[in-house]
Parts: sequence; structure tokens; C-alpha cells
Amino acid sequence: MRPINLQEKLTKIDAPWSPRVVAELNDYQLKLVRLEGEFVWHQHDDTDEAFYVLSGRLRIELRGDAVEMGPGDLYVVPKGVEHRPVALPVCEALLIEPRGVVNTGDAGGALTAENDRWV
Amino acid sequence: MRPINLQEKLTKIDAPWSPRVVAELNDYQLKLVRLEGEFVWHQHDDTDEAFYVLSGRLRIELRGDAVEMGPGDLYVVPKGVEHRPVALPVCEALLIEPRGVVNTGDAGGALTAENDRWV
Repeated sequence: MRPINLQEKLTKIDAPWSPRVVAELNDYQLKLVRLEGEFVWHQHDDTDEAFYVLSGRLRIELRGDAVEMGPGDLYVVPKGVEHRPVALPVCEALLIEPRGVVNTGDAGGALTAENDRWV
Repeated sequence: MRPINLQEKLTKIDAPWSPRVVAELNDYQLKLVRLEGEFVWHQHDDTDEAFYVLSGRLRIELRGDAVEMGPGDLYVVPKGVEHRPVALPVCEALLIEPRGVVNTGDAGGALTAENDRWV
């Protein structure tokens, strides 16, 4: 049996802001995402959301605060907390969240990605 | 606000087979663990368990099969599946599982670690 290699999976991701599922853990999903520049302000009212940076720089803006992240850094955005991920200028990250979470949360809009896409 | 840096946290782990919580995500915990040599055969009847290798080599033995892992590799052991982690000879990994999961599962014994210890 073979493990899932995240670097190998990342080479198959061809678009930014389009999280792709690599594994499921009970009713949670682990997703890889490439981030480029600024995302939209949004929040997830029902769940926390974990970001683990694999490459590049990521700033997670919070209202009145920010978390500056590089490779090996982990941050959990608490549920209901408005945030905006900003890649400087590009970042690859692993997301951990329950199945069904939409990337733009309550905000919607053009950057809303199709859910439950695997890579 | 500062992120959690996994490498920095790993320097504070002074014993093998003693998972330490670094973050919570709803009712899940992210834990760092140092593995040395062979663990015990066990299973978790109520939950899947994710292993993400940060350094070293890890073989997760399954009955009649095995998963060979290095840095950047991810594997989710399905619930109820008997497994034995074997570090070759040392490995550092991130575990993702619901709060309350005991490291030795159904097996118990000398390697059972105190639960919910943070680092």
C-alpha cells in the first residue's frame, strides 16, 4: 500500500484557490490548495479551519490582527472569525476541515470553488 | 498573533511515543510525536487516524501489508484496522485524530501515554 505524497499531489494542482481533497479522516477532509495573492474576507460559522503551510509565505489577516506564516507553520482560524488569506505572492498549504466546507464561507463570490474535488 | 511552528515544538518533545497536542480543530486534536523503533499492534475501533511524516522513515505495518513513509507522506489508518507503527529508526510525525484517542488504542500496555498533554 502506498502513502499519499503531498509534493507529488501539489504538482497536479493547476489553479489557485481551488482546494483539492487528498484524504478523508472520519467526516473531515485534508485538502491541498495553492494560494496566489489576496483571497476574500469570509468566515465559517460552523467550524474551525486549520492551515498548514508547505511552501511560500501566507498572511492570514484577521480584523485588527494578522498571522504571518511560512513553511512548517500551523494556524487554526476559530469558527465565526472573519479572515482573509493573502499569499505573498504564492503559497501552498494543507487545509483540515469537516467535509462540505466551502472555501469562501459566508462570502460567496467569484472565487468560490467547486467542493469535494479530489486530486 | 503567532502561528504554531512544528519544528520549534518538536524540539520540546523529550520522549518517544508520547503524543503532544499542538492545536485543536473543533473536537479534533493535532499532535506531534517522536517515534523510535517498534510500537505495539493496536487498533482504534471508533476513529480513523492520520499520520503525516515530518522527518525520518516510518513503516505502518498492517496485517499482511505495510505502508512505507518518508517526509511529506500522509496516510490515514481506517478505524478498526489493526496497525503497528515502526520508526526506522526514528521518525517525527503529526497525528490528526479526535480528542481523547489513546495512543495504544485497544491494546493498552507500557507504551500507553498520558492523554491530552500539550507542548
